[in-house]
Amino acid sequence: MSHDDCIFCKITKGEIPSAKVYEDEKVYAFLDLSQVTKGHTLVIPKEHAKNIYEISSESAGELFSRVPKIANAIKETYGAIGMNVLNNNEAPADQSVFHIHLHLIPRYGKGDGYSSNWTTHGDNYSQEDLQKIAGEISSSIK
Amino acid sequence: MSHDDCIFCKITKGEIPSAKVYEDEKVYAFLDLSQVTKGHTLVIPKEHAKNIYEISSESAGELFSRVPKIANAIKETYGAIGMNVLNNNEAPADQSVFHIHLHLIPRYGKGDGYSSNWTTHGDNYSQEDLQKIAGEISSSIK
Repeated sequence: MSHDDCIFCKITKGEIPSAKVYEDEKVYAFLDLSQVTKGHTLVIPKEHAKNIYEISSESAGELFSRVPKIANAIKETYGAIGMNVLNNNEAPADQSVFHIHLHLIPRYGKGDGYSSNWTTHGDNYSQEDLQKIAGEISSSIK
Repeated sequence: MSHDDCIFCKITKGEIPSAKVYEDEKVYAFLDLSQVTKGHTLVIPKEHAKNIYEISSESAGELFSRVPKIANAIKETYGAIGMNVLNNNEAPADQSVFHIHLHLIPRYGKGDGYSSNWTTHGDNYSQEDLQKIAGEISSSIK
């Protein structure tokens, strides 16, 4: 099912043009117009889902199963030395189009257009704390 | 197949302890010791693969199909307002353990421990350039 007001649904239907990298029955891939790095590609399911919270298990599996061959093609085409695969969910995590998508960002070295900052908080938690957190999450999985 | 010298293979087999969030026949999830944000979880396939370039299509699909339910559990347990799902491949893209893994980083607001920097290069490319790039990648997909 597609959503009439969704720009990515329109792209998969060809109602909005895109630079198409890949298409099959379930999945569509096209260049991100921002080209954070050369070859920066978005991989999306044709079935509309807002984000990781709302996509079905089946559609999520179909989506990611296509990523290895697309990632390899990007790597080989432009000689990428690394690849960040990113899925941002909700605005505070930088989601801006609300149709789930995976960014494939090939990396060419420092200053290529993408970087991330990770602050370790491991010292704040004892092994007991971690077991408690894991148990709380685990018991919420449906 | 597991690799004898792989720390994540050892975790899935219980030879190294972990704060386990989820386990089934194919997939294992546990807390990242760095806890960049509270509930920061790694989701990995039990079958060893170095990264996105080497994982099978089938194993990639199995891996990601488990993410929606784990992401929902993390969100609900700690009231996350966003979620970054990240897969880093090769050292220049910040991969440090060479058994493919997905980071689930729940977000709680600015300064929570994670952020990323994206530089747009869209102005460097004409529509013709983008079609050429898409065609070059597309023709390399095997």
